[in-house]
Amino acid sequence: MKSSMLALGLLLAMGAAFASDVPKKPAPTMQQILDASKPSDWRPLDPNNTLYMDLPNGRVVIELDPAYAPLHAQNIRTLAHEHYWDGLAILRVQDNFVTQWGDPQAEAEHPTHKKSIGTAKDKIAPEFERDIDPKLPFTVLPDGDVYAPQVGFSNGFPAARDPKTNKTWLAHCYAMVGAGRDNAPDSGPGTELYVVIGQAPRQLDRNIALVGRVVKGMELLSALPRGTGALGFYEKASQRTPIIRVRLASDLQPAQRENLEVLRTDTPTFIALVESRRNRSDAWYLHKAGRIDLCNVPLPVREAKSK
Amino acid sequence: MKSSMLALGLLLAMGAAFASDVPKKPAPTMQQILDASKPSDWRPLDPNNTLYMDLPNGRVVIELDPAYAPLHAQNIRTLAHEHYWDGLAILRVQDNFVTQWGDPQAEAEHPTHKKSIGTAKDKIAPEFERDIDPKLPFTVLPDGDVYAPQVGFSNGFPAARDPKTNKTWLAHCYAMVGAGRDNAPDSGPGTELYVVIGQAPRQLDRNIALVGRVVKGMELLSALPRGTGALGFYEKASQRTPIIRVRLASDLQPAQRENLEVLRTDTPTFIALVESRRNRSDAWYLHKAGRIDLCNVPLPVREAKSK
Repeated sequence: MKSSMLALGLLLAMGAAFASDVPKKPAPTMQQILDASKPSDWRPLDPNNTLYMDLPNGRVVIELDPAYAPLHAQNIRTLAHEHYWDGLAILRVQDNFVTQWGDPQAEAEHPTHKKSIGTAKDKIAPEFERDIDPKLPFTVLPDGDVYAPQVGFSNGFPAARDPKTNKTWLAHCYAMVGAGRDNAPDSGPGTELYVVIGQAPRQLDRNIALVGRVVKGMELLSALPRGTGALGFYEKASQRTPIIRVRLASDLQPAQRENLEVLRTDTPTFIALVESRRNRSDAWYLHKAGRIDLCNVPLPVREAKSK
Repeated sequence: MKSSMLALGLLLAMGAAFASDVPKKPAPTMQQILDASKPSDWRPLDPNNTLYMDLPNGRVVIELDPAYAPLHAQNIRTLAHEHYWDGLAILRVQDNFVTQWGDPQAEAEHPTHKKSIGTAKDKIAPEFERDIDPKLPFTVLPDGDVYAPQVGFSNGFPAARDPKTNKTWLAHCYAMVGAGRDNAPDSGPGTELYVVIGQAPRQLDRNIALVGRVVKGMELLSALPRGTGALGFYEKASQRTPIIRVRLASDLQPAQRENLEVLRTDTPTFIALVESRRNRSDAWYLHKAGRIDLCNVPLPVREAKSK
């Protein structure tokens, strides 16, 4: 305290021309911004857009994004409601790329007993991009992007857009979940899902439907043993992690649901958070980047204080 | 075959004005480029810059980069030569960030029996960036970067540079290895090393010395259970993966060394590889990115055919 008082005294003595040299209060850290956030900076997960995937070691929570993938979200709700994934497995873990789960039979060369998809659809129109809509929130990031004319966040999801074509699409950042497909664009109905576990594979953007994001339990999918077959598929059935069950939160009683909130991305608090990561104020950083990549922006999730 | 013959016939009938519509041979895939590569497109690892870290589940091979971190490379050689890491452990695995190893005592609140670093140095001048040198190869990538004015590859390592300041530095891409430090810039002598296991944390660039890259065995570091303490440190000693030994390849007999080659990044073959990843020619890709991020470029490594 004493030295800053002294500095202020010196500056006053040197006159107003040096006012910009007044020692500034250090910029807040991300944690300080989160600590100072208001309840309205957060939103609860919508149970109708929230999946719980229970694995032997714990639960993965996935938030679906019906704004960008409404048809896929609806099909995935149906699949979860009808217990499609129960007893299926994690089939593929490719280092620095994706973890993928679904029906082992669907990946077999000669499938003999593929699990029925019940009343879900087998084909869905591609949802690789959609029209820009002024009603869809979009917080633009200031530092540009290698892959797209503009990037930012829409309802908590990393996204890109091209004002020239009026199109917008979700971006393949870490923890984003997509619907695997074969060569046909409509062949990914959401039965086989994948999550990004490495450097953002942005070349997949606009080629495949992203449907949501892992908001809890990511380490249960990222720390799995890598598959040794082609594309990281497990070569033996015994290597696969079984899926105990996948449920839609709205199919559970309210008391049985997770009570998570995500930070809204259309708030001044989020803009302050981005700034705190563009220019880290902790003493460790000798060189502040002054920039941030879309997929380096943290998207905080917390337990709500009460239901 | 028939339909393409027909298409060619139609084009000929329509005249030369449509010549650009003649179906082109599809661009080669990365695998086709590698299959067609010449022996001179590859270089063997220099045993004096190659570390073998043996873990209970296998071997990690790290290539040091003496062009960007000569002092750290020299200290790390000394540490390996004197068996510093033997019996130490992997201390930290933070999801989507880094895996870190070294002396558990060095991270303890009240260290009682820190391992001696022998004749290695305790402090090293920071090697966070270096001058651009025309003799240092640098293959520029064409698509820009969020963090730096220019990015590319130097001797097989992802790097960035700023022609205005005449500085260049290694980039924190997946699998890059750095020397952890405390707040003092000279406090990272290479005793505690980390490797990037998630989205490239480019905010670390120019803040800490990158010393090399994992060229084999990355999955032994990326698939470890995440630590549950602050910053991903393991909370119990029993959770740590022990390091059996770390050796410099040149300290082993030639017959005992790994026989790996890395693709040179200063060749037309590498430029063709980058192009094959900017515009994927496989039928699955409906939308070609036409761009690539520095940390999305694969850096192939192979077993040499003979010694």
